[in-house]
Amino acid sequence: MHLRSKPWAKPWLEAHQDLVIPQDAATELRGSWQGQFAKQQPIHVEIGSGKGQFIMNMALAHPDINYIGMEIQETAVAIAARKSFDSVGILPNLRYIYGNGNGVETYFEKGEIDKIYLNFSDPWPKTRHEARRLTYKSFLKSYEAVLPEHGEVEFKTDNRHLFEYSLVSFMKYGMRWEADDYSMDLHADPDKVEGNIKTEYEEKFLAKGQPIYKITAHF
Amino acid sequence: MHLRSKPWAKPWLEAHQDLVIPQDAATELRGSWQGQFAKQQPIHVEIGSGKGQFIMNMALAHPDINYIGMEIQETAVAIAARKSFDSVGILPNLRYIYGNGNGVETYFEKGEIDKIYLNFSDPWPKTRHEARRLTYKSFLKSYEAVLPEHGEVEFKTDNRHLFEYSLVSFMKYGMRWEADDYSMDLHADPDKVEGNIKTEYEEKFLAKGQPIYKITAHF
Ligand SMILES: C[S@@+](CC[C@H](N)C(=O)[O-])C[C@H]1O[C@@H](n2cnc3c(N)ncnc32)[C@H](O)[C@@H]1O
Ligand SMILES: C[S@@+](CC[C@H](N)C(=O)[O-])C[C@H]1O[C@@H](n2cnc3c(N)ncnc32)[C@H](O)[C@@H]1O
Repeated sequence: MHLRSKPWAKPWLEAHQDLVIPQDAATELRGSWQGQFAKQQPIHVEIGSGKGQFIMNMALAHPDINYIGMEIQETAVAIAARKSFDSVGILPNLRYIYGNGNGVETYFEKGEIDKIYLNFSDPWPKTRHEARRLTYKSFLKSYEAVLPEHGEVEFKTDNRHLFEYSLVSFMKYGMRWEADDYSMDLHADPDKVEGNIKTEYEEKFLAKGQPIYKITAHF
Repeated sequence: MHLRSKPWAKPWLEAHQDLVIPQDAATELRGSWQGQFAKQQPIHVEIGSGKGQFIMNMALAHPDINYIGMEIQETAVAIAARKSFDSVGILPNLRYIYGNGNGVETYFEKGEIDKIYLNFSDPWPKTRHEARRLTYKSFLKSYEAVLPEHGEVEFKTDNRHLFEYSLVSFMKYGMRWEADDYSMDLHADPDKVEGNIKTEYEEKFLAKGQPIYKITAHF
């Protein structure tokens, strides 16, 4: 998804650097992210948070977790942050980083975050773009560097090819999952959809009747 | 792999119907395969056994298992059977079926065979040929119909796309595996390659330096 740039975005982000942390400031916070939140509690990060519906609703539903939405597109993170700011103000457990998921180890220490979410990541279907997929090995390496031992990556997608690719990428990397840790049609699976919070893309693909694939793998 | 037909094949098969069981005879043996072998012991079947190196060497290495190589190409099954006949005669624990893996339930009763091997199955890369892949759901249904509860399918391939596809197909079908039940590079994995018997295709791809993917999944 490429969003057209919005004239309001830059000035808005400039004025809300406490809520949307820019890359350089994010690297300086490495090792001290708990100081950004009201309570010291586990931090979960969504990489590629887009327009932010998932991460905002997760933060509202789970006050005992600190959330960070990380986005590489300035316009997207501005839309996400402004939407949450306008509807619920600055939540004590929600921040954003305007940054690149491939560089998470420059933002976080090993074990500083507890879980990573990837939702409807761009599929990059061409093989020559493989290295851009958020489940490519260089990304997995970065995720491993910031998660605790056996830390989890939760991945939802409508894209069967990206899902297939990702399973093999996880396996190749030595990641694991239990037989109950996946669903091939999340919204037809009462046990597994319980507590699920939908992303914008998820709503769109659900409306088209497409199955949503989900897997939780750990290092 | 499509093999050019050989003039000797038909007459040879005609003369060796005790070794290479034709389809119609195979359906009549449904429920009584143990009678074809010297000893009553578990039966393992390779579907798409090609030129037969794997199944013959398995039979030699494991006299306590009865093996059946099943092939849809007459020329291939004739080459396989003649090769084994010429080198070791009729082994007490090895037979062939000239038949279609999609119809295994016409040849075997539920639980009559104990394990299925798929080695370097044709990848059929085009989506419109999906139904020909030996890990397509209709095949899985047939396999389930002849294996015992939780019966195993062991699958080796060099083809990453087919491997990716197959993992998802297994998952969609509800099949499972443990984290130790796969290798992403069999021949670089000392624990997992132990006792491995190579197929013709495996040798070919190994010589090219390609990794061999392997998974053992169960229903
Ligand atoms: C298809 S959108 C999905 C958005 C949202 N997760 C959802 O499910 O509705 C993928 C998002 O990932 C972002 N993205 C792509 N590569 C990224 C990277 N390396 N780091 C951070 N975000 C990235 C894109 O800018 C885009 O906003
Ligand atoms: C690429 S070859 C591999 C042969 C051998 N397993 C190996 O690894 O060297 C695949 C074989 O599967 C056979 N085959 C394809 N579809 C089949 C089916 N539905 N039932 C039985 N055999 C099949 C083909 O005729 C071919 O001989």
